[in-house]
Amino acid sequence: MSKTLTEKILASHLEEGTLGNGNPIGIHIDQTLTQDATGTMAYLQFEAMGLDRVQNELAVSYVDHNTIQVGFENADDHHYLQTVAAAKGVVFSRPGNGICHQVHLERFGKPGKTLLGSDSHTPTGGGIGMIAIGAGGLDVAVAMAGQPFHLISPKVIEIRLHGKLRPWVSAKDVILTVLERFGVKGNVNCIFEYTGEGVQTLDVPERSTICNMGAECGVTTSIFPSDEKTRAFLKAQGREEDWIELRADEGAVYDDLFEIDLSAMEPKVACPHSPGNVVTVASLSGKRVEQVLIGSCTNSSYADMKKVADILDGHTIAEHVSLGIAPGSREVLLMLSQDGSLAKMIASGARILESACGFCIGNHQSPGTDGVSLRTSNRNFEGRSGTKSGQVYLVSPETAALSALSGQFTDPLSSHGIAFPKVVQPEQFLIDDSMFIFPPENGSDVEIFRGPNIGDPPKNTPLKEDLDGFVTIKVGDKITTDHIMPAGARLKYRSNIPVYSKFVFEPVDEHFSERCVENQDRGKDNFIVAGASYGQGSSREHAAICPMYLGVKAVIAVSIERIHQNNLCNFGIVPLTFEKEEDYTRFDQNDELVIENIAEQIKGDRVVLKNKTKSREITLRCDITEGQRAMLISGGLLNILKEKA
Amino acid sequence: MSKTLTEKILASHLEEGTLGNGNPIGIHIDQTLTQDATGTMAYLQFEAMGLDRVQNELAVSYVDHNTIQVGFENADDHHYLQTVAAAKGVVFSRPGNGICHQVHLERFGKPGKTLLGSDSHTPTGGGIGMIAIGAGGLDVAVAMAGQPFHLISPKVIEIRLHGKLRPWVSAKDVILTVLERFGVKGNVNCIFEYTGEGVQTLDVPERSTICNMGAECGVTTSIFPSDEKTRAFLKAQGREEDWIELRADEGAVYDDLFEIDLSAMEPKVACPHSPGNVVTVASLSGKRVEQVLIGSCTNSSYADMKKVADILDGHTIAEHVSLGIAPGSREVLLMLSQDGSLAKMIASGARILESACGFCIGNHQSPGTDGVSLRTSNRNFEGRSGTKSGQVYLVSPETAALSALSGQFTDPLSSHGIAFPKVVQPEQFLIDDSMFIFPPENGSDVEIFRGPNIGDPPKNTPLKEDLDGFVTIKVGDKITTDHIMPAGARLKYRSNIPVYSKFVFEPVDEHFSERCVENQDRGKDNFIVAGASYGQGSSREHAAICPMYLGVKAVIAVSIERIHQNNLCNFGIVPLTFEKEEDYTRFDQNDELVIENIAEQIKGDRVVLKNKTKSREITLRCDITEGQRAMLISGGLLNILKEKA
Repeated sequence: MSKTLTEKILASHLEEGTLGNGNPIGIHIDQTLTQDATGTMAYLQFEAMGLDRVQNELAVSYVDHNTIQVGFENADDHHYLQTVAAAKGVVFSRPGNGICHQVHLERFGKPGKTLLGSDSHTPTGGGIGMIAIGAGGLDVAVAMAGQPFHLISPKVIEIRLHGKLRPWVSAKDVILTVLERFGVKGNVNCIFEYTGEGVQTLDVPERSTICNMGAECGVTTSIFPSDEKTRAFLKAQGREEDWIELRADEGAVYDDLFEIDLSAMEPKVACPHSPGNVVTVASLSGKRVEQVLIGSCTNSSYADMKKVADILDGHTIAEHVSLGIAPGSREVLLMLSQDGSLAKMIASGARILESACGFCIGNHQSPGTDGVSLRTSNRNFEGRSGTKSGQVYLVSPETAALSALSGQFTDPLSSHGIAFPKVVQPEQFLIDDSMFIFPPENGSDVEIFRGPNIGDPPKNTPLKEDLDGFVTIKVGDKITTDHIMPAGARLKYRSNIPVYSKFVFEPVDEHFSERCVENQDRGKDNFIVAGASYGQGSSREHAAICPMYLGVKAVIAVSIERIHQNNLCNFGIVPLTFEKEEDYTRFDQNDELVIENIAEQIKGDRVVLKNKTKSREITLRCDITEGQRAMLISGGLLNILKEKA
Repeated sequence: MSKTLTEKILASHLEEGTLGNGNPIGIHIDQTLTQDATGTMAYLQFEAMGLDRVQNELAVSYVDHNTIQVGFENADDHHYLQTVAAAKGVVFSRPGNGICHQVHLERFGKPGKTLLGSDSHTPTGGGIGMIAIGAGGLDVAVAMAGQPFHLISPKVIEIRLHGKLRPWVSAKDVILTVLERFGVKGNVNCIFEYTGEGVQTLDVPERSTICNMGAECGVTTSIFPSDEKTRAFLKAQGREEDWIELRADEGAVYDDLFEIDLSAMEPKVACPHSPGNVVTVASLSGKRVEQVLIGSCTNSSYADMKKVADILDGHTIAEHVSLGIAPGSREVLLMLSQDGSLAKMIASGARILESACGFCIGNHQSPGTDGVSLRTSNRNFEGRSGTKSGQVYLVSPETAALSALSGQFTDPLSSHGIAFPKVVQPEQFLIDDSMFIFPPENGSDVEIFRGPNIGDPPKNTPLKEDLDGFVTIKVGDKITTDHIMPAGARLKYRSNIPVYSKFVFEPVDEHFSERCVENQDRGKDNFIVAGASYGQGSSREHAAICPMYLGVKAVIAVSIERIHQNNLCNFGIVPLTFEKEEDYTRFDQNDELVIENIAEQIKGDRVVLKNKTKSREITLRCDITEGQRAMLISGGLLNILKEKA
């Protein structure tokens, strides 16, 4: 029978379960990646498993999130990551070497392989024909231990590309169009598989831009075939031997189809405060812009940066605009510094920022009050920029560069007088792996550094007979992990759960953690009640660990995003959804709730809850796998692993 | 009679008083500069004076301190600075254009002129033959209003240079040697004037490195003659017409003499936690280094950076070292990007940081716990790096670059196998003024932007009859303005005195501000008791404004640094010193103090204080000028200016 590309790769990696029909499956993970924000916890958890060395084919530890380094915590964490990598057989990518997804694509990504990364934009690897999935740090730790990764057999949605992009229209506009169609919710347990003759008109970095931001739709991942363009990219990276051809069989059957005529694409923009608020750039033409930031894992390849340099060449940015450019990797930066592109950028007035995630996670470059900021990154959640009233718009590098010059939203297809920068993929990238540290054959002698901010990963207790407590917070739709666990300046506490826990829900309600502690102190449980798409965004497992630490026992939501639901189960918090969506309205903050015999109840898929304050019974669903049930009952995956060992 | 160069320039700018004998004088200020950390308050104060336009020859507003921009406050402040500059006739240097002192030297510094800057390293301008003095923001605002700057007629100390530096020994080693000789205290109201045939062997940027760090000795400023080297520098900056020849007369008489044989200089290093803890690099040879940071207003000229690039060329930094490089200005960065130097740095593993003060003020790149950090900057006060236990060493760019490669303290004169980078000053700098915004002829139509974090500058009340309160804190020697008003992440509150005031003395005693408020609430005054050299370091006037806001009425210290003493008077806080140094030991925190008839008492130079707790009378000195007495009585300079208007 004809197979989709997704089915082929999943089938060749299947270790548990039967593919298809939404079945839970376990797949073998070839490669893992972590970044510094989620990585410290992942390696602490890996250490807790007691293994001498990672068991998977390749594990890479990147430092890209907090390279600003305010306070001792970050440098200490980098030091821990470097030493634990050497000790456990992990490749370490030093601070300054670039953004994990860009660097991984350049130096390690291989068609047909599986990649699990503790970062939600791991699907970037789909551009090179991998099944690349974002997950919590503990899931990645388990994969490094050589154990399968569990997921739901995904629906495969075909996105068929026709035609060819016009000059000035780019891959970013394609994925914004996909977001316009699919939105940021309702796509859980789906994979976008790109097909059609339009595929061959896109280079690997363009494909990766498209796969990267599929994450905003909430899909498990996105994938492109591996073809001659893939071979050319790998050859230019000196890795032609890593290439294999991969595509869906003729006549493969998909669960859904969305057709895109690349020739008809228009420049698009995602407006505040969701990547799904997509309109045309033309519709905002002339709107004043105060800040433009180009970079992030979405749009920081050599070709993206070279285009930007060519657009800026010989021009000066508008007087009221601050333009920052962060090339995605040291390889890209080095090439730009050698071919004159960097000089062109600087001459135009651009500020060159470090090759890191920086601005995208609100680590720096916060806009001013109500400031309009055009960014080539992938998320524009409220407050993520570090400025609550900041107005962040997501655009292509072309739109960003032109708008920086004019000082206003500028449609690249309008007559702006700038020549189109025709950039072709280089036949040879400048390869320099000197900022990777490859681990010794035997790392048992390596002393692992632990700064005072690094503690043991906390564990949950086994599930209680009855849950009995209060709605400690009620939140609305589209609550992201940034709302739950703020990044930016707070991220430096990532390795110190007692401290980081003080900031749970800080952007929404800064007294949440105090109320949790009060309830804990009087022996009561905490419940979170939420709307649709709870836990979207970053894969940050701290959004489960820290609430766990504060005694949150269940999340009751209209819907819960995939990665976050996994993280909740991994740490023993029961994920529940309303059987009737309207029941969401029947809860208020401080309502007293009881769920009796919870362990028994979650063996079925219905759970009955008593709202004592409202004197009502409400039926909830608990759509989880058998494995996840076991985790909840044991109080999380770490306890299960301990039981096994 | 033969005159020193200092006397010549001061005499030609004298507006009040008689030069010499420690007399108080008022001089005309030709040029002013501000940076963003001190600038917002300076321009708010200038606005409060009600003038349409700055009255001095040239006023430049730089943005260099907080270009990391965490939170809306910084971008808002930049926006305020840009618009107030346009409204009031000030040149605005945009974020990314570089560090004020480096940029001012390149584009505006002129031999024979006076420069007043709201930054303690303003003396950098002495390298080009200016009398360039650091002061509080209010002093700069007054100078912008065309009014004289008041100072004590300085003693002029001749530093006579002989010989010529050997390869690998640099200007930084000269000033570290000066610091070794003069220390960081006891040099108040002195000026270092460099003479001798060794002067002509030093280029302007080298002279500026030496003048820059004279600030650490606590002198009013440092100055070099203007000669052919000065002419060559100005010519290479396209400003030969700004050159005049200037030197001391033959036979000029100095107050003191220190002779230096440049040929005998050795590479030096200032050890934690004072720029005065100077030893040879050789004595630390082999000590492990974790971080190397090259840049800051001390060592970020084109020549410094080019040398570093040539040292790094073809080599890779040690595995355990993080190397950051921040070129001092956009001009420097642009030249490095065009001549291949930037590519060499990146290839070696260096992380390129923005052309700004950044790491030097602890805004980012904090070292890890106990981390050994080699920096080319000028201050290594405890905790200033953002890491309390960080071990910061101050060195030359040559020592820094070599140590980054070897991973340990490396004496440039030892046999390390790296070829000496002979760098000559360029005959033509790459001049590009496009990131300056020159003000319109008439700025009255410009709308000045004020973000929600910007308030009115607070004023003090006239001096009370009796001071009556408590020793709210007792601190030791060498308390810097960084101890009093922490920079780093706190600096973003600089325009919001009520908020910033919460952090007074945070690094020393985080409950200080609470105690002040408690005392204020019960109608009591606050006193600060301190050891020697109180208020050294940054010129940050917030170290006076915020204590004033908290009801601090007097500082009683063994000695008080010049800029800080001026700032205290400017804001109506009485600066007092012990007549007998040992009386310092007769005070404890919480002692109840009374100074009766304070306004009468400060008319003389002795003030009697009653320590009620200890039942003793203590005699204090109040060594201030008539002008400062008037300020204290009126409750600060702003009140005086208001009375005059």
